[in-house]
Amino acid sequence: MPLRVDAALSPAEPLPTGFAAAVVVDVIRATTTAAYFLQAGAGRLLLAGEVETARRLAGGGALLAGERGGVPLEGFDLGNSPREAAALDLAGREVVMTTTNGTVAALRSAAVSPQVALGSLANASAVARWAVGFDSVLFVAAGREGRVALDDTYAIGVVIEKLMGLAEVELSDPARLAFEASRADAADVLAASAAARALEPVGLAADVGVCARRDALRVVPVMKGRLEGALTFEGAVF
Amino acid sequence: MPLRVDAALSPAEPLPTGFAAAVVVDVIRATTTAAYFLQAGAGRLLLAGEVETARRLAGGGALLAGERGGVPLEGFDLGNSPREAAALDLAGREVVMTTTNGTVAALRSAAVSPQVALGSLANASAVARWAVGFDSVLFVAAGREGRVALDDTYAIGVVIEKLMGLAEVELSDPARLAFEASRADAADVLAASAAARALEPVGLAADVGVCARRDALRVVPVMKGRLEGALTFEGAVF
Repeated sequence: MPLRVDAALSPAEPLPTGFAAAVVVDVIRATTTAAYFLQAGAGRLLLAGEVETARRLAGGGALLAGERGGVPLEGFDLGNSPREAAALDLAGREVVMTTTNGTVAALRSAAVSPQVALGSLANASAVARWAVGFDSVLFVAAGREGRVALDDTYAIGVVIEKLMGLAEVELSDPARLAFEASRADAADVLAASAAARALEPVGLAADVGVCARRDALRVVPVMKGRLEGALTFEGAVF
Repeated sequence: MPLRVDAALSPAEPLPTGFAAAVVVDVIRATTTAAYFLQAGAGRLLLAGEVETARRLAGGGALLAGERGGVPLEGFDLGNSPREAAALDLAGREVVMTTTNGTVAALRSAAVSPQVALGSLANASAVARWAVGFDSVLFVAAGREGRVALDDTYAIGVVIEKLMGLAEVELSDPARLAFEASRADAADVLAASAAARALEPVGLAADVGVCARRDALRVVPVMKGRLEGALTFEGAVF
């Protein structure tokens, strides 16, 4: 059985369920920083959704770390900087962290997956070695301002590439997108898409080759107006 | 002034406003088929959101085309097949089309943009030549089952590549993602992201280089449990 890999690239999308593990990626910077905190010796890292929750949890001597809008928080011991984290000795310390996007993504992931890890480029191969222990993995991009983010998607692609070196995988559309370039061969990429595969059982697979053919036409359907709620288009040659 | 290019890759995301033109992409198959209908000589193409609207609009002698779930519709003259469309002579005919995803994306696009075109690989260069006439362009992926689709994103990337050959462009994160591969250089891609640029004014740009460094660590922050609504993580080495 191949390892099933999916990726929720947009924070606007409800997370799919049924995955054995989730990898949260907020590569600039929360999940990178989190890995550095633990590398620096922290015994435990807590991710809190709210600043006040973080403050309360840190009451017993833990370090407070995080940001809102990229800026360090009043009274916090640490920001959300992997550079800062890399220079620390946190042996035996506990860190309570809250960030704008990464924490939210982690909380959402935990709501759908029994196992959750934080992934980044910094620990890409390590995360892949973690993920290969499950039969299905969902990557969750933190995203930016509610939309798909380039950096998180890129980092997910790198981890998936590592994972593909370790196991046979079955990639969803978004997982494959994260892995692939738009400079890859059109026919190959289109044929791999869920839309193409959905055409097979209805006998329309041959359409895909036509869809993949570049620059066969010079006509552009351009919207001209509306009619009873519909849009009207006419062809224009360019 | 560079041409501003954005892309809404997930149908779950609200469309950004303020763009002079929108390019709707449902490459498998609606926007490819639409281009072929017009190439075949159709004088006009209507995109209707609902099957009943399409039927009513076609009452006066237009051809009915479309699908739901990839399957042709009862009583319709044509499906949503670019192969079928390429073989037709539609000189002087009007086509009323309704499809599962592409039509919805077109209607959403029209609600935010005064100019809308349908893009595909088949007319990629032509669409780019259309788009270069505006100062800002939003690509809208139809997507699949409410999520990011590989094929649409890929096709948007190809059109953007063409556009970059015609004009100086300023790409949003999702637009750049569509263009880039995960196999590109990490530092380059991360530096280009909105997340990285947002760090500059707050003096944290140097963090990006750390975030871009692959395999610096072997530690994986793994969720261990919850505490007062927060998630707890511990480092595991892989």
